[in-house]
Formats: sequence, structure tokens, C-alpha cells
Amino acid sequence: MTQPTAIIGVVGLAVMGSNLARNLASREGNTVAVYNRSFEKTEALLAEHPEAGFVAAKDYTEFAASLARPRTAIIMVKAGRPTDAVIDQLVQVFEPGDIIIDGGNALFTDTIRREKAVRETGINFVGAGISGGEEGALNGPSIMPGGSAEAWESMGPILKSIAAVADGEPCVTHVGTDGAGHFVKMIHNGIEYADMQLIAEAYDLLRRVGGFTPAEIADIFAEWNTGELESYLIEITAEVLRQVDAATGSPLVDVILDQAGAKGTGAWTVQSALDLGVPVSGIAEAVFARSLSSAPAQRAAAQSLPASTETWSVDDRDAFVEDVRRALYASKIIAYSQGFDAIVAGAAEYNWDIKKGEIAKIWRAGCIIRAQFLNRITEAYADDPELVALVTAPYFADAVGSALPSWRRIVAGAALAGIPTPAFASSLSYYDGLRADRLPAALVQGQRDFFGAHTYKRVDREGTFHTLWSGDRSEIEATDTH
Amino acid sequence: MTQPTAIIGVVGLAVMGSNLARNLASREGNTVAVYNRSFEKTEALLAEHPEAGFVAAKDYTEFAASLARPRTAIIMVKAGRPTDAVIDQLVQVFEPGDIIIDGGNALFTDTIRREKAVRETGINFVGAGISGGEEGALNGPSIMPGGSAEAWESMGPILKSIAAVADGEPCVTHVGTDGAGHFVKMIHNGIEYADMQLIAEAYDLLRRVGGFTPAEIADIFAEWNTGELESYLIEITAEVLRQVDAATGSPLVDVILDQAGAKGTGAWTVQSALDLGVPVSGIAEAVFARSLSSAPAQRAAAQSLPASTETWSVDDRDAFVEDVRRALYASKIIAYSQGFDAIVAGAAEYNWDIKKGEIAKIWRAGCIIRAQFLNRITEAYADDPELVALVTAPYFADAVGSALPSWRRIVAGAALAGIPTPAFASSLSYYDGLRADRLPAALVQGQRDFFGAHTYKRVDREGTFHTLWSGDRSEIEATDTH
Repeated sequence: MTQPTAIIGVVGLAVMGSNLARNLASREGNTVAVYNRSFEKTEALLAEHPEAGFVAAKDYTEFAASLARPRTAIIMVKAGRPTDAVIDQLVQVFEPGDIIIDGGNALFTDTIRREKAVRETGINFVGAGISGGEEGALNGPSIMPGGSAEAWESMGPILKSIAAVADGEPCVTHVGTDGAGHFVKMIHNGIEYADMQLIAEAYDLLRRVGGFTPAEIADIFAEWNTGELESYLIEITAEVLRQVDAATGSPLVDVILDQAGAKGTGAWTVQSALDLGVPVSGIAEAVFARSLSSAPAQRAAAQSLPASTETWSVDDRDAFVEDVRRALYASKIIAYSQGFDAIVAGAAEYNWDIKKGEIAKIWRAGCIIRAQFLNRITEAYADDPELVALVTAPYFADAVGSALPSWRRIVAGAALAGIPTPAFASSLSYYDGLRADRLPAALVQGQRDFFGAHTYKRVDREGTFHTLWSGDRSEIEATDTH
Repeated sequence: MTQPTAIIGVVGLAVMGSNLARNLASREGNTVAVYNRSFEKTEALLAEHPEAGFVAAKDYTEFAASLARPRTAIIMVKAGRPTDAVIDQLVQVFEPGDIIIDGGNALFTDTIRREKAVRETGINFVGAGISGGEEGALNGPSIMPGGSAEAWESMGPILKSIAAVADGEPCVTHVGTDGAGHFVKMIHNGIEYADMQLIAEAYDLLRRVGGFTPAEIADIFAEWNTGELESYLIEITAEVLRQVDAATGSPLVDVILDQAGAKGTGAWTVQSALDLGVPVSGIAEAVFARSLSSAPAQRAAAQSLPASTETWSVDDRDAFVEDVRRALYASKIIAYSQGFDAIVAGAAEYNWDIKKGEIAKIWRAGCIIRAQFLNRITEAYADDPELVALVTAPYFADAVGSALPSWRRIVAGAALAGIPTPAFASSLSYYDGLRADRLPAALVQGQRDFFGAHTYKRVDREGTFHTLWSGDRSEIEATDTH
């Protein structure tokens, strides 16, 4: 019988799971148990990384027996049925007080369901978002665990030991109960979609309007990475744009097929935000831009559609680059503001005590959207914990204000020249809508009252009203529930 | 015991149900059975409309006994649990071959589930979208039934007899099996959201930039209603804008609180389209515009955000009005094109044989988005049943082409002047993205390969590739499922 010597175990040894197991094993004194459905993969990992000192289990009974109590296991398998299957097995061999952590990209409502079911056995279930890709898993990811406070107390130290570090602080915090961790990870991914789309639009403008080569644009992004845009995504954009394809000698970006894939978390973010009534237009446009790109038959049929009759000629290229940079920064602020709105709404809906400033903090390193910029978000929520919209915090309001003329020029120029900027344009419209004194939503309410008697409220007194449109057109007080 | 004399029955006598029952009863020779959970409502309907000759039932047994076979009942209650409760009751008293029609706004996946469950009893279950509001229910709605061909054969004639009529044809067709009817009704509502938002943006521009009064804008819309924009929504917009508030003497639109409500079908459309991978950006922006308008705390906080430093002064007001009209028409074409894309994708996903041209036909009268314009859609699909995107059909491509300079001027002008035009701008970006020879999605794929080894395809040869970004940066062939 295996001795219960392992401090933690990992189930699922694909690349994310293997890397996370190696990360765990690399911390002093940690013994890590590993299990995979096909034992060959386990053997391969042991052979390749003897330094890790893994304890290999051939089945779940052995796996459980190898773990010191309270047993803690991280599941790193595909979201959906495979995750449910592993949970079912672990529940058989674990005991009350043990901890099952799902480190995959589960939909947070699945996590809520699983936590409720597993809790009844006395075992703790923790849905933990883990961001940072393969490299993050190995060297320090950003970790967003949900679940009970009791589970967090037990597993917190080991998660802190493997997490990325930003300004001396580990990028992990107890996000909230049950599905809170996976919810926040989902929003992280949604923001990531927006961030990537905004960068893509900036690149497209620099290329098509500015006339810069990919290598020159790589330099521009590298330069931007020294300023307020500093972030992992800006950094790797420079790397990607600098890459030359060995086979053709062309920039790699020109050789890559322009059809972007997606794994679903961006769509989940938009779907969840729609349930919550939160406008995440920047994220939605980013998701849609990917699906549009991946419709080759439609794109081929649309090749003959009329273009613009205007060309956008740039006299001062440096000024143009700066305009694009500012448009990107302002749009990015909107994307984050919308993402945090969704977090606030989710916390209210699902009764999570989510500390927004802490979320920004644990995203500063390890994850894909890591950026110095996130410190400003933490500060904004520290200054005003009840902040109703990130973009209205003084720092961000000033930042957007400075960027505004550039942002407007870029969106207007792109519209005239026929360059698609769905995320730039949507973010600007959102901004102008949010700050508008009066919106034409009043007309929409009038229309709805006309055709569906949906009623309206008045600006000058309380109550709910309906105009008798097909009668004498007088106004009556109506019940709200009509 | 009641004699089984009624040709059809209605369950649920709120305003939509009552009006539909009256519509049914008004056709020659029709006897209509009615049932409502509280009998007072039934009695009130009978008292108010003795001419209808309703057969009133006090319970489900009486209701079933009053119906000639095969029994046909239309449920007009709230979507969700109330609908399930009524179905459960009807299944108890109905027999194989009878037909239960759900005429509410059910989510189509609920309809698929219900159809499957009810079918096992031998009873037919039909989810039927009914559009047209209270007035349409009374005088002729557009009806979108799903369900089996057998049920359609049985109930088709009576549905045809009460439907709206367009160019001599009743606005009802068998959309497809199980949930197809409610799916298409959902898309109808999504398009309605986009249409209303586009009209609202046009109004806002005419008001804020053109300087027209609501009454003047009512005249403009009335004028537009004589041309290619002719539609019910344009017509009622003129009516709403012409309305003067009796209490204040102000235009009613200035008295209505500018916070637009929503009943959820717009959000469902976007959520379903995200599942299907179809970019319905115009609809999404419309849904988000409503939720943005309904966030008063955020809007209040954003009042101090910087506006635009530019003002948009219009020299030629007639030309400006025409620019707005064209922008509206082009954006509307995009909204319909995206909506029909969703129908095509839904049909493929759920195995529905949906005839797109027929759908456009039954929307020509009775429903909220009714418009002459829909004839052009029918023609486009008649000319090319395999049309991959509506906007690429010659008629629509020409229409958008003519509108293009105006559309670009409006979106650009609004961006510079700080007028939010989320749906105009989004539709234009979609158009420019669809027709783009090359999209920056290639860069997104490069980024995804960099941080997540998500791989990419090449423009010059088959296969799936990965660059060893953290290695020697050479390219390897990768498996697609990485």
C-alpha cells in the first residue's frame, strides 16, 4: 500500500495538468500524487521528470491512499462530462473534510451545481479558475478559487506557493463561495477577447492606413509596452509581428489564415452578462469579430460588395500612431469597465462577496491579461469601494478624457475609409451613451407602449403610464405588471 | 355535460389570449371554448363579448369535453412554469391525436423539450410564435408554428383563417418541426430590437444634430414611410413623435423616462446566436443599449465625463436627413441579414427545413417588423435559395452600395460629435469586416498560438501549425485537437 505522503494530487496529465503538477512538486518539501486515466501518460511524465518525485497512482483508490489528510486533489481535465466523471470517482474514495479542486474552465453554473452536490458528502468542492496557459501553469498562474472559506483556509497556502507573484504578492485570493472563482475567470477571458480584438484593430489601422510593415508595427508595440499600455498581450503582439515565416520569408502574420478560433469562454461571458443585464458590448464585438472571420463562404460572397470611395491618407505618421495608441487605451478602459460591471452584477445575483480590488490585484501577473494597468483598478476600488463604473473613477476618466479626441478621430476615420473597427467603435458609442444626458431610449419606450402596451415612466412624476394609442390617445395610469 | 361543439379552445384569458379567442370566434361558424384559472376572468370576457358565443369551461375536464376531435387548444399564458403547468393539465384530459399549441413566447429549447415529452403521450405539441401584440391577436397576427406535419395539416386551416393577410396570402406557414416556430419568433423579436434601436439612433441624430423638433421628425418619418423604409415601426414612430403630453404640453417623447425595458427575447436571440457562432452584432448592440439606458446610477456618475470638443454643424439639412435615412436603411439590411444568418444556422443545428423566403413572407403583415421590404428578402431567396448572406444578394448589395457614403458620413460624424450610434456603427463595422479581403484575425490566431499553443492554419497549405514560441521559434505541424 502506498504511504499517504503526498500533500496534493493532480488528476489529468495533459499539458496544463502536467505543468501544474511540476509547479507543485518544485516547491520545497512538496510530494505530489499524479493520476491519469491512461497510465502511459503518467509513466511518460515520471520518466521525463524524475526530479519531481511524483507519486504515481494507477487507480483512484491508490491515488486517495497516497494523499495526506485532508486530501486535496486538483482536477485538470476537459470541462463538462469528463470533469463530472472524475468528480464521481473522487467522491467514492475521498472522505468528509477532503478537498476536490476543479482547475478547468468550467462554466460557473456547473460549478455551483457540483459544489452543492459534493457538499452533501461532506467533501469540499472548489471551482478554481487558473489562467496563464501552459507556461503559467508551470511557472506561476493567476488562480481564482471559489468554494467554502474552510476549504480556502486549508488549501490557500499551497495555492499561494505556486501562484504568480506581483509586487511581492501571490496572485491568488478567495474570490467567493461556490462558482465565484469560475465566474471571475470567465470574465477574465471575456476581457481577454476584447483586449485581443482591440490590439488587432490597432494593428490593422497601423498596417492599412499607416502603411507600416509588421516589423515596424512590432517596434511600435514594443514601444507601447513601455508606457501605460504595458501588458503581456502588447508584449507578445510585438513578438508575433516580428516573427518571419521560414518557409516563405514573409511575416508570419501574413501567412496565418485570418480565421480566429474560440473555445467558448468569450461567448459565455456575453451570455452571462445578458442574463445579468450588463452591456459588455466590447467583449461581444470581439466574440462576433472572431465568428465573422471564421465564415469563409460568406466572406467570399461579400468580396464584391462596394468598398469605400475615400482613402485615408495620413500626413503625420507619428501623430497617427499616437492617435491609434490612445484609441486603444481608451477602448481598453471601457472593456475593463464593462467586465468589472459584470463582476459586480454577478456578485449581487449569486451572493458572492467579491472584492473587486483584489481581483484586479491577482490579475497583475500570471494570467493572459496581466498588466501594470491593473494597479490603477485596485486603487480606484480602494479609493471608492462603491464605485458604480470603473470609467467614472478619476484616474480613468482623466485617461479617457485625454484620449478622447484621438479616439474620435480614429473611429471616424475608419468609418469613412472602410476599415472595420467593431470594438473601437462600440466602446466609443458605449462611452457616449453612458455620459449622455438624454438617450433616445425614451422613443423606444414610446414605441413599446404603442404596439405592446408595455407602459412607460415619466420624468416628472412617479407611476407607470400608458397612452391609449388606439383610443382617444389620452394617458392613463397603468399597473406595472401589464 | 357540455357538448363537444367547439372547434378550438383557448387557455389563458389575459389580453393576448382574450383577443386571440375573439379573433377565432369572429370567423364564420367557429365556436371557441375558453378557460382561465380564475373563472371571474372567463365570466368577464363572456359578459363583455356576448357576440363571440364562447363556450366557457370551469375546469380542464369541461374544457376537453367541449372540444370537437381532434381537440385543439391554444395556450396563452406566461412562458416558463405557468406554461408547463397548463400542459401537464391538458395532457391529463386530452387524447392521442389531439393538439396542444403553445402560443406564448417560449424559449425554443423549452419547446423542443416539451414537444418531445408530450409526443410520447400521442398528443401533438406545437410551439407557435405569435407576433403582433394585442391588436394583432385580435385582428390578425403573424403566426409561426412548429411541431409535426400532421399537426400542421390539422390546425393549418384555422390558423390561416385568423392570421394577418399580406398580398392575399395568410401570414402563417409551417416553419419546421418541434421548436422551429419559437426559434423563428425569437429571431423576429431580435430583429425588432435592432430595428427599434436603429430608428432611435436616427431620431437622436435628427434631433441633436439636425435640430428638428419631435413634430418635424414625425413628418420626416411619415415621409420615409412612403419609400423603401415603409414599415409598421416607422409608421408608429411618426405617431409617437407627434404625440403631445396633455399634462405639460411638451412632446410626449420628452416626458417619457429614457430607460428602455426588455422582456428577454432580444437577449435570447443573442445568446442563441452565440451558441450557433453567428455574429448578430446589430441585435446585441440594441439589447445592450437598452440595458445601458436602464442603469441610472452609472449614467448619473458618468454625467461628468468629458464630452466632445467638436460640434457637428449641418449646412444642408435636407442632405443630412437623407444621409440619416440611408444610414438607417443600410443598417437595417445588415440587421436582417444577421437575423437570417441565425435562422440558417439554427435550421442546420436543429435539423429544421426552414424556407427562408416563406419566413420573410409571413412577416409582411401582422407582426411588429412588418414591412414591404420583406418582399425583397423573399425574392432574394427565390432567386438564390443557397444565398449565403442576405446582404450579398444583388438587390441588397446595390441598396447598401447606394447608401454607403451617407452611412459612413453619419457614423463618422456621430463619433466626432459624441452622439452614441452603437447599432449604426456596429452594422457598418460588420459590413466592412465581411467584405474585407484580409482581417486582423490572423494576428489574433498568432497571439492564441503564442500564449496557449492553440495552433493556426496557413494561407498557403493544408494542415495545422504551431510555432515553438518559447523554443527556437521554428514551426511544427500540430494535431488539430491540441
